[in-house]
Amino acid sequence: MKCTYQKVENIKIAYIGGGSRGWAWGLMSDLASADDISGEVCLYDIDCEAAHHNAIIGLKFNDAEGTKSRWRYSVAETLSVALTGADFVVISILPGTFDEMESDVHIPEKYGIYQSVGDTTGPGGVLRALRTIPMMEEIALGIKDFCPQAWVINYTNPMTVSVRTLYRTFPEIKAFGCCHEVFGTQKLLAALANDFCGVGQINREDINVNIVGINHFTWLTHAQYRDIDLFSVFEKSAQLYHKSGYLKGKDDNWRNNVFDCSHKVKFDLFRRFGYIAAAGDRHLAEFCPSHWYLRSPEQVKQWGFGLTPVSWRKQDLKDRLERSRQYRSGELPVTISQTGEDGVNQIRALLGLQTMVTNVNLPNRGQIPNLPSDAIVETNAVFSADRVSPVVSGNVPSALYPLISRVVGEQECVTEAGLRRDLAMACNAFLSDPLVTTDPDTATRMFREMVKKTKSYLVSYFE
Amino acid sequence: MKCTYQKVENIKIAYIGGGSRGWAWGLMSDLASADDISGEVCLYDIDCEAAHHNAIIGLKFNDAEGTKSRWRYSVAETLSVALTGADFVVISILPGTFDEMESDVHIPEKYGIYQSVGDTTGPGGVLRALRTIPMMEEIALGIKDFCPQAWVINYTNPMTVSVRTLYRTFPEIKAFGCCHEVFGTQKLLAALANDFCGVGQINREDINVNIVGINHFTWLTHAQYRDIDLFSVFEKSAQLYHKSGYLKGKDDNWRNNVFDCSHKVKFDLFRRFGYIAAAGDRHLAEFCPSHWYLRSPEQVKQWGFGLTPVSWRKQDLKDRLERSRQYRSGELPVTISQTGEDGVNQIRALLGLQTMVTNVNLPNRGQIPNLPSDAIVETNAVFSADRVSPVVSGNVPSALYPLISRVVGEQECVTEAGLRRDLAMACNAFLSDPLVTTDPDTATRMFREMVKKTKSYLVSYFE
Amino acid sequence: MKCTYQKVENIKIAYIGGGSRGWAWGLMSDLASADDISGEVCLYDIDCEAAHHNAIIGLKFNDAEGTKSRWRYSVAETLSVALTGADFVVISILPGTFDEMESDVHIPEKYGIYQSVGDTTGPGGVLRALRTIPMMEEIALGIKDFCPQAWVINYTNPMTVSVRTLYRTFPEIKAFGCCHEVFGTQKLLAALANDFCGVGQINREDINVNIVGINHFTWLTHAQYRDIDLFSVFEKSAQLYHKSGYLKGKDDNWRNNVFDCSHKVKFDLFRRFGYIAAAGDRHLAEFCPSHWYLRSPEQVKQWGFGLTPVSWRKQDLKDRLERSRQYRSGELPVTISQTGEDGVNQIRALLGLQTMVTNVNLPNRGQIPNLPSDAIVETNAVFSADRVSPVVSGNVPSALYPLISRVVGEQECVTEAGLRRDLAMACNAFLSDPLVTTDPDTATRMFREMVKKTKSYLVSYFE
Amino acid sequence: MKCTYQKVENIKIAYIGGGSRGWAWGLMSDLASADDISGEVCLYDIDCEAAHHNAIIGLKFNDAEGTKSRWRYSVAETLSVALTGADFVVISILPGTFDEMESDVHIPEKYGIYQSVGDTTGPGGVLRALRTIPMMEEIALGIKDFCPQAWVINYTNPMTVSVRTLYRTFPEIKAFGCCHEVFGTQKLLAALANDFCGVGQINREDINVNIVGINHFTWLTHAQYRDIDLFSVFEKSAQLYHKSGYLKGKDDNWRNNVFDCSHKVKFDLFRRFGYIAAAGDRHLAEFCPSHWYLRSPEQVKQWGFGLTPVSWRKQDLKDRLERSRQYRSGELPVTISQTGEDGVNQIRALLGLQTMVTNVNLPNRGQIPNLPSDAIVETNAVFSADRVSPVVSGNVPSALYPLISRVVGEQECVTEAGLRRDLAMACNAFLSDPLVTTDPDTATRMFREMVKKTKSYLVSYFE
Repeated sequence: MKCTYQKVENIKIAYIGGGSRGWAWGLMSDLASADDISGEVCLYDIDCEAAHHNAIIGLKFNDAEGTKSRWRYSVAETLSVALTGADFVVISILPGTFDEMESDVHIPEKYGIYQSVGDTTGPGGVLRALRTIPMMEEIALGIKDFCPQAWVINYTNPMTVSVRTLYRTFPEIKAFGCCHEVFGTQKLLAALANDFCGVGQINREDINVNIVGINHFTWLTHAQYRDIDLFSVFEKSAQLYHKSGYLKGKDDNWRNNVFDCSHKVKFDLFRRFGYIAAAGDRHLAEFCPSHWYLRSPEQVKQWGFGLTPVSWRKQDLKDRLERSRQYRSGELPVTISQTGEDGVNQIRALLGLQTMVTNVNLPNRGQIPNLPSDAIVETNAVFSADRVSPVVSGNVPSALYPLISRVVGEQECVTEAGLRRDLAMACNAFLSDPLVTTDPDTATRMFREMVKKTKSYLVSYFE
Repeated sequence: MKCTYQKVENIKIAYIGGGSRGWAWGLMSDLASADDISGEVCLYDIDCEAAHHNAIIGLKFNDAEGTKSRWRYSVAETLSVALTGADFVVISILPGTFDEMESDVHIPEKYGIYQSVGDTTGPGGVLRALRTIPMMEEIALGIKDFCPQAWVINYTNPMTVSVRTLYRTFPEIKAFGCCHEVFGTQKLLAALANDFCGVGQINREDINVNIVGINHFTWLTHAQYRDIDLFSVFEKSAQLYHKSGYLKGKDDNWRNNVFDCSHKVKFDLFRRFGYIAAAGDRHLAEFCPSHWYLRSPEQVKQWGFGLTPVSWRKQDLKDRLERSRQYRSGELPVTISQTGEDGVNQIRALLGLQTMVTNVNLPNRGQIPNLPSDAIVETNAVFSADRVSPVVSGNVPSALYPLISRVVGEQECVTEAGLRRDLAMACNAFLSDPLVTTDPDTATRMFREMVKKTKSYLVSYFE
Repeated sequence: MKCTYQKVENIKIAYIGGGSRGWAWGLMSDLASADDISGEVCLYDIDCEAAHHNAIIGLKFNDAEGTKSRWRYSVAETLSVALTGADFVVISILPGTFDEMESDVHIPEKYGIYQSVGDTTGPGGVLRALRTIPMMEEIALGIKDFCPQAWVINYTNPMTVSVRTLYRTFPEIKAFGCCHEVFGTQKLLAALANDFCGVGQINREDINVNIVGINHFTWLTHAQYRDIDLFSVFEKSAQLYHKSGYLKGKDDNWRNNVFDCSHKVKFDLFRRFGYIAAAGDRHLAEFCPSHWYLRSPEQVKQWGFGLTPVSWRKQDLKDRLERSRQYRSGELPVTISQTGEDGVNQIRALLGLQTMVTNVNLPNRGQIPNLPSDAIVETNAVFSADRVSPVVSGNVPSALYPLISRVVGEQECVTEAGLRRDLAMACNAFLSDPLVTTDPDTATRMFREMVKKTKSYLVSYFE
Repeated sequence: MKCTYQKVENIKIAYIGGGSRGWAWGLMSDLASADDISGEVCLYDIDCEAAHHNAIIGLKFNDAEGTKSRWRYSVAETLSVALTGADFVVISILPGTFDEMESDVHIPEKYGIYQSVGDTTGPGGVLRALRTIPMMEEIALGIKDFCPQAWVINYTNPMTVSVRTLYRTFPEIKAFGCCHEVFGTQKLLAALANDFCGVGQINREDINVNIVGINHFTWLTHAQYRDIDLFSVFEKSAQLYHKSGYLKGKDDNWRNNVFDCSHKVKFDLFRRFGYIAAAGDRHLAEFCPSHWYLRSPEQVKQWGFGLTPVSWRKQDLKDRLERSRQYRSGELPVTISQTGEDGVNQIRALLGLQTMVTNVNLPNRGQIPNLPSDAIVETNAVFSADRVSPVVSGNVPSALYPLISRVVGEQECVTEAGLRRDLAMACNAFLSDPLVTTDPDTATRMFREMVKKTKSYLVSYFE
């Protein structure tokens, strides 16, 4: 890495995973848009061909219209080669295939348990965590050995467990986890502010929020645009739309539009608890007692969100593979467009090119005093040269404390179980999950069935 | 109050409530057994006749065989008279009658929700809390005005909410809450230690325990008798008895024997979480997700404990009223016997006559660092002259944190709702209770029905 | 206040104090330079004429070259008029006159105690605090009554005691304290970075720092410019210059240049403790044991800084009064120049016009976990729409803990003594100050002499 | 170890050090007085002959009048032999000889620095700490290897640094530090209570106290005997005796009577700070700024305590060696008498034979929330079967916080320096000590001279 006047050159970014394409292409586009950084992206994926395909596509961005910087794209055969000398490590892996995700999401349905996502919490989230933890452990050990000073950006779900595993394995790691769910809520607030106060089209970055919680179950305790208290706007909105839902302010990020919701869960939670939940309704519902929003497909429909079938994900992957082919062949040109993600700006901030404040997942060092130390929490943080400092976000409000403390604790238990490769301990956490409402014996059977179906990714638990 | 060589005379104890007799007579017996303290017990009950009856009985203890000290018994017409000049205040009230308790326990059954006690948590616990909070507020204000330096011992359930209300209303109050549930677990451990290690009959006081949790959901993180680690004893016991239950070591306290259990819930919790839950199974079950132990009367039976019908309580009260009549008439002589309760010894310790360590409910001042400050928690504490110091009991273990933090948070919310007389806020806490598993709309209807049935004790919520 | 597209109009700023001119004119200039805010500055000073003079000068800025916004300047006869309707309150008072400061600084010299500033800590700092506390109390009560939602920016020294008093008096106040001493250290680091690494002229804002400590005794635990670790640069500098001092990188702020130092104290502290102290040497020396840097005028000289005589301050004031006259008469035109202060940018951030991160004095809500809660500490904070969130800055490093915890504690004691108007308690804190090295009897005599000399500003202590 | 009905037999106590005799003989006497424990004391001392002499004397206690239990006494040639199989480890070593202590105490006098003890803090305390840390490290490593489950009782000074080193080296160690200084203050309070309230002769154990602070600088925040608030008694005493001193209530422990004081320092501290310091004045003075009580021998005299010359210690040692000879030869019979120390009762409590509450030095786990976690603090603790639980003692009062936090921090720095064998870091802590009032250059010279004189015990610092 080399800093020159207003630029940083020769940055090495190790990109771990990314075979699923979407995220990788977005980062490529954002990197190409940044005129003050350049260097190399070294791709590593257990699906080596996928990495090669991405490298080919990455290089095409150098010639795309509007490119401001040039990046080399290489493929590493091993994790250690990818990590050696890296200044940044981006982790964006899929723990298992969509076949595993199918069993995560759809086996519980046989037991009457419905999940709208299944990748964070609930039965599916627990199983996915168990698959993810050994992978994150391996990556963390690699970072410790080959680039201990690198900054590590995780995009992998389940976020909380992933980041916790990185820190448990290598406590000095400089890692944080990024998620755009809060952005969606900022966009919703921007739309509502325009509706109610006529502020015009405003950027989501201009919606100032204070955040407490954990990934996908983050809550706003303060939301302000200029002199407008957005809590009172949201209160009026909840009044008006809690029955019908609100359909404006949709996320324009292509990754999210199939995941849309009508915010009825958000409005309901606001009316009950007085705070704004800042994630898509599909995620929020999974952290609540199952009888609130997820008792049955009918109830889900009534609340205006959807159960995401894994078949959709499989089709979507096929589409992306086809697009990959078209990009590589040149049938489809790569184009540079703002993804709205913060990743590249965070990198620029860590290089000292700007200071920025955004939400991020980090070990609790005091930012939320009434949650356990070192648990991974989501709050705002300041990004500046070689430092990420979380802001003091204050206590979880007492009305939310029962909901949030419980799931923070569950995530800790799942991580511990994964690190110990202890399926009995994991099963116990599984039994305590808000969505698991069968009697313990049945739940244990379900757990075993899910383990069996995903066994090839859980080998280390049986050694 | 006057201290002389090895004695303290002229102590004034204000006894608030006690009309239900049981607790009052036990205290009378324990006071008569203590040779180093004497004075006056001033009885106050909203049922003035009950207080008069108790005064008559109290005086009879002065002539009972084995009496070691003499106590005057008087009746106060008003709370302020009772409190004025008091050195100690004992609070043992029934918030409402058993008719209210009937609706607390049995209305939810219509909705498929079963409660084994219904006085602490669950739908019944929430309603009882709402009735109790205004009463505790009144008592706390009286203490502030008439005896701010007095030590206040609460026996009223719901314990956590009661003690919290005392402190919220008068922060300088010197109050603590006493409960004998942990004693029962110590007796169980003593019986198991004898079974497995042949230690002979030992006193429950000799079973050393470290306690973290909240009332009726307390947990042991250390249990030792001499050189015997009782965790390994309990592990063997759980192995042997988790299916059959264990029936020895029954509590010999007459107040408890109808409430017996076979400890199968305790064994199950130990096998799952690795810690010893220290309360009767009837209480423990109510703090867990309802599908674990309380899904149906059949499941309850299978777990070896019982649903306590309020009809039994009503019959039991009749029996006690009849006994009261017999005591007063002299048909039945009062007799002095050790109740095994700690109350009188705590009083003696606070008077500087001894130092003792026992479990008690107090605001969290750091005794359990990972629970919220000021929440009422149950741990050991040191009682000495004019001081109760909780011991540093350590964090709630991470395996238990999801279970315990959630209910601590719920109790805080219920207290807040009661203090604000805010039924909407209370309803919201009600909806989040582990036992409330109907959908929110139905649960809200149930809440309203329960409020309506107990309205005469909730007048201040409608003002 | 009224927000329009990209602008906020009709802001009311109450400016309390400012008769001493310097700060006031700087703010006027900075306000005039901001094109997106406008409104009214309402001046209040106990020296009403001074306020009038400033109002006249303020208005002249509207016609100065380069003015970007227009501000009305008015004078309030009473504090309540100034505060009513204020959106912002700026507090910049002189507690007493320079005659009082003369006794603060020079009486101790008779007892062999030398102070380089005398306005923050040491004997002079304590006395000044005692005068300031009642004034801050009055202002805080006014804010509570007349503009409880206003943001309050304090520039008055002693900073720690002033801000603490504001919060003790009105706990919901939205106040923070600003000081530019850290900026000076950033400028020093920028100069060193150029010397050692040839980075060219860089802005102090680009030097990223993490800050822990209290005002005028702040310490950096991280300092980075782009990829340059400034701790290693500072280490080399300390090696080279700890004997000779370093004279480049001088503050170009006219307010500071008479206060220059050669950074020998800073280098010495770095060599001993391993962290960069971030204030002028004159301030730093006063928080250390007196025999380190302030034993005698000779020792002070040797360390390359100066004792600031109050006679200089009196002359400087005269110069400013003369300049005031010239501004008013038009002999001297007012000119708009960047002061480098953050005040106006903070105001813009609080109005939602930008997000910024800067150092600020706030109650400890967890930003420095090993210092007492609620003590006023200096760290970075994020300024955004209607919110200031301190960043989690981490523990005071153990090497610094003895030095810092002691003075934090002393400031708390002085505040308590002032709020209670308890001179005995104040005297006791005085006796514990690092600079007070006479025996306690002599120190008590000195304290009394100093109180006597400044009695007219301590009237409320004798009521 | 074997528990039988009401007894524990075959206990193994490893006694490390003790060559200096006094403590060892007291423990022998106390062990012989306990009728419910018996076993073996295995003596280890780097002066092997001293251990042999003690073993001979120990055996004589078995035949002394009033002996209630029999103990075997053996001598171990190596530390590992002593520790293997130990249930308890008692550490009572002299770090260096009195020649080293001579330089600790008397070299600083050449620089005008007077120390009344010189074994805890001040220049002598720092040097002694540097000698002690490597020894404690070795012992802790031995415990880790040979008896990790043993309870470890430390009597060695400097207490804070010793216990901290044990925990830093082997974090799972079950160690605590015991000191009788608080007992002396309890005796003083008992005497004053008799004088002022005529309570008669009472035991120091009956004086209930709450304790916060660190060893030899402990403070009482609550002191009560029955219904008597001893703070008001102490206030009257301070009023009456702060000039003359108070000479009753002397410690009847032979070890202490040469160390008597008139409590004038204690009275002075009370009058200034409002809390009772609970150690001998000789110790208290050393933690305060040197100009308060230790500026000169004259000032010391005036305050009614003494500088303990090491020549006295040397003579005292000779006397004890002579008494050792007499015991061994039988010229002097060993006699059993209560030492008033808590050690044997603590052992009995840890064996489950009783529960007791006493003051003890332990890592801060929350007992004093406003001091750093893990620093060694002195508070009350509950001793019960295989557990020591500190009590929540509350924050250091703000008036004391500057005094106490500073020295807690210094002890942490000295421990760190010792563990790193870093003399530069140690020197820096030395320069910050309250008693070191020379300029830094001179102090550095003094430090080097002291190191040189005690070099043979600091070998590992030069490797």
